[in-house]
Amino acid sequence: MGFLDGIKVVDFTHAYAGPFCSLFLADYGAEVIKIERVDGGDQARTWGPFKNDYSAYYASFNRGKKSITLDMKSEEGQKIIYDLIKDADIVCSNFKAGTLERYGVGYEQIKQIKPDIIYATISGFGTKGELSKYAAYDNVIQAMSGVMDVNGFADKGPTKIGPAIGDSYTGLLLLLGIMIAFYHRQKTGQGQQVDVTMLGALFGLLEYPVLEYANNGKVISRSGNASKYVAPSDIYRTKDDYIAITVKNDSQWEEFRKILDLPDTEAYATNQKRLENQSVLKTQIEEKLKNYTSKEAEALFDGTQIAASSVMGIAESLENPQLLARDMVIEVQDPVMGPVKLVGDPIHLSENQPITNLPSPTLGQHTEEILMQLGYSEEKICWLRANHVV
Amino acid sequence: MGFLDGIKVVDFTHAYAGPFCSLFLADYGAEVIKIERVDGGDQARTWGPFKNDYSAYYASFNRGKKSITLDMKSEEGQKIIYDLIKDADIVCSNFKAGTLERYGVGYEQIKQIKPDIIYATISGFGTKGELSKYAAYDNVIQAMSGVMDVNGFADKGPTKIGPAIGDSYTGLLLLLGIMIAFYHRQKTGQGQQVDVTMLGALFGLLEYPVLEYANNGKVISRSGNASKYVAPSDIYRTKDDYIAITVKNDSQWEEFRKILDLPDTEAYATNQKRLENQSVLKTQIEEKLKNYTSKEAEALFDGTQIAASSVMGIAESLENPQLLARDMVIEVQDPVMGPVKLVGDPIHLSENQPITNLPSPTLGQHTEEILMQLGYSEEKICWLRANHVV
Repeated sequence: MGFLDGIKVVDFTHAYAGPFCSLFLADYGAEVIKIERVDGGDQARTWGPFKNDYSAYYASFNRGKKSITLDMKSEEGQKIIYDLIKDADIVCSNFKAGTLERYGVGYEQIKQIKPDIIYATISGFGTKGELSKYAAYDNVIQAMSGVMDVNGFADKGPTKIGPAIGDSYTGLLLLLGIMIAFYHRQKTGQGQQVDVTMLGALFGLLEYPVLEYANNGKVISRSGNASKYVAPSDIYRTKDDYIAITVKNDSQWEEFRKILDLPDTEAYATNQKRLENQSVLKTQIEEKLKNYTSKEAEALFDGTQIAASSVMGIAESLENPQLLARDMVIEVQDPVMGPVKLVGDPIHLSENQPITNLPSPTLGQHTEEILMQLGYSEEKICWLRANHVV
Repeated sequence: MGFLDGIKVVDFTHAYAGPFCSLFLADYGAEVIKIERVDGGDQARTWGPFKNDYSAYYASFNRGKKSITLDMKSEEGQKIIYDLIKDADIVCSNFKAGTLERYGVGYEQIKQIKPDIIYATISGFGTKGELSKYAAYDNVIQAMSGVMDVNGFADKGPTKIGPAIGDSYTGLLLLLGIMIAFYHRQKTGQGQQVDVTMLGALFGLLEYPVLEYANNGKVISRSGNASKYVAPSDIYRTKDDYIAITVKNDSQWEEFRKILDLPDTEAYATNQKRLENQSVLKTQIEEKLKNYTSKEAEALFDGTQIAASSVMGIAESLENPQLLARDMVIEVQDPVMGPVKLVGDPIHLSENQPITNLPSPTLGQHTEEILMQLGYSEEKICWLRANHVV
């Protein structure tokens, strides 16, 4: 049994950030009721990759949730939402600020119905200020936060981080906020609002460039794969591909130097000197490594202190026994797609196992079931369907 | 009062990943007792940026914690650790697998002393398998997980994500695991082990490239700043710099096209067509935008549905009123550095405010205080100091 058994979530999330958050709630046993538009539902249903014309993307982030379709603009639809929330513990959403208020589902409105609700929202910029009215996408937030400026190479333009971490990381912060609020409610009986922004989340990842500029006025921009503080720490060309290596201290350097037969020179005696001379050092390292494939080079460092890995593509990563052993690739039986491979839960707890084998819902799959639980008659449900409320 | 008031954490973390996790515990009121090596302490104390020769980096991730120095290899040191843990709620660490066991502080050993302990660890690869004995650094895990392969441009090599998300993201997952375990203990009285790996964490961020390959055998590699699924969504050169823009659907496209006076052609009529013709489209967009600075271009989309932002460096990002209003840049009075600017807490809760105004500890600052609380006499403490146990 999940540790959130008996907990009910009314889930207005869509696309990536919000569903990434409520996925963990479902994994740990909460009943997550996803509200979807009558006309097509969550936009992620139209996003690839597809299997049997069904979105594996949607499936991946909505495993184990229930789907009810609803016209939130209609009075009857709002009534259903209130009925759902009366009995719920958590509401979450990632609409831009003001959207839920317009539908009568803002925090102040919901508190009237359910005073101890945990009301959790992701937005691009928060509920106040000039930017609050704007929708936010990962790439725009990456640009605004400064993240793009510190990702990539100095001789190339600013670079978007490949995976949409403006969504995933912010989703995880929201989940953490929900857990804090949940514990607080447990202790005090009190609900609260949890509010996380994509802009604040990504800014919070910038580490030393922010500290350096804010305190010393020094601008640190992108530096490709090389570390600013440790050398050698970079990726290097081999006979067939690349290898990532980090040599953290002088003792590791001695070991590394001997393995690759690099010169025992004063110029590389300390980390500071290796940093100053890193461009010559890199040439010398690559001169040695061109005799090895990445896998052969990796093997050179087996059993040493030195951290090294060939740079792997997805295909290779997917076969890593270390990942497979941790259930990071799971197979779910889906009613539409058949067996589909999805991504597992990276948190391992000895006493709380996540439930990861449930498929995602088809659009509106649980509409009837949920309405009947709320006490709606079959006749009423027919009427709601005929009037496109559900 | 923090919601974790009265909760005691014995914190073996160092560098970035672990301290990023325990920082949040300190923010919400837990007493975080950081165990540091007698000789120099946490390696992050030697990492820049510096202010008054003191590490602002260390300060940023260790705000509000207490520091005790300890020789973990000595019998007396281990006795102190047991004394600390007897009275603690949470142990956390980011040593590689096996290190704490060697010091007599593995989960099985600690459970004997404190059965309901929450024992939380970050490692590169987990406690089992061939790779478990290796230390892990962010760049090596980025290489192995597949993240480097999907970050950056097709015409450039694999690219490390600038900020060390192998550390920060994994740290946050550990924190989430701790919160789940904490709630479980609250409910059942039972402690447990929380185990998160950097490899699993980063793999869990890969989204569509994993789903596409695992289900359809199709390899998706890095594509720079352009979206794979939506067009136009990219960054564009302007008169002076770059601007990030995402045009999500046909209605936004109509608006965008009119603002920039782009051709009203069948070739751009649907998202699919705009994707197919995105390279010509990009040239046409940049042809228009070269007449505007990034700020002027941004202003063109004010009050429209279109998400756009100039690509900002850290200096500009640091002045964004939307970030400042959310306390993402805080000033802490530090006994060594004086006033120092650090990064705030991105989670906003209406009922649980984080404590973010406390400085980080100097090395061993609380050694005496903590030992006296454990009942050690002044004489004994003198002896421990003289013998370099503390």
